[in-house]
Amino acid sequence: MRLGITECTSRLITARHGILGTTPADRGPDLVPVCFVATATHAAVPIDTVKPKASTDLRRRRNLVEDPRATLLVEHWDEDWSSLWWVRARLELVAATPSGRLAEWDEALRVKYPPYAGATFADVLVFAITGVTGWSGAG
Amino acid sequence: MRLGITECTSRLITARHGILGTTPADRGPDLVPVCFVATATHAAVPIDTVKPKASTDLRRRRNLVEDPRATLLVEHWDEDWSSLWWVRARLELVAATPSGRLAEWDEALRVKYPPYAGATFADVLVFAITGVTGWSGAG
Repeated sequence: MRLGITECTSRLITARHGILGTTPADRGPDLVPVCFVATATHAAVPIDTVKPKASTDLRRRRNLVEDPRATLLVEHWDEDWSSLWWVRARLELVAATPSGRLAEWDEALRVKYPPYAGATFADVLVFAITGVTGWSGAG
Repeated sequence: MRLGITECTSRLITARHGILGTTPADRGPDLVPVCFVATATHAAVPIDTVKPKASTDLRRRRNLVEDPRATLLVEHWDEDWSSLWWVRARLELVAATPSGRLAEWDEALRVKYPPYAGATFADVLVFAITGVTGWSGAG
């Protein structure tokens, strides 16, 4: 069954991780698991220096310069399909986030994820949520 | 660390579910959790009639007519980030699959997923795997 907006938002905010999809011009969609924090209107995805990466000039940032639209999926898998659910948020990159607001996102990320305690971020991608839909196998 | 192709393929084949990304022309990427079966060269995603949906003329099928490229992500989340891993397969829709081969995919899906026992599928999307990459937080 379709989930209402309030339920979608609640599940998005409390989810521990999600899948971020971005769209390069020259190939199929790029999908990557991400840590994030969300409110009813915005989502922030850090480019951290904690998990080892080849570079912090990540493809996802370059994709978003080409096309600022992205999608964040959170979901629950279960072998019992009546327990399945997912929530999909449509996003658009916020071009410039005031530094004070960025500091708040940094802090929210550190509170949500203990391994980020004391961490600094190479970048934080801040998105406006332009729509949210969800589905549940229950009911 | 980067995972080798053999390791990527092994994790893709044994994963119980994945996230399929397709690219509509008019908006950001569509992401949806899917059941699937994979070999080293192909992946098949059913459009089933078991989990309730608004329609079997699904957006993912229409997206793939517009752009046959897709991405399948399988991943493991863990609060211990040294246990994180993901594998991403680049896909391209196979336009026409011989009916005998389709029957084999149907059977493989029923073997992998008990709730599909006795089920028929509205459609099975068959993709060629054009590339695979993976990452693990371990080591």
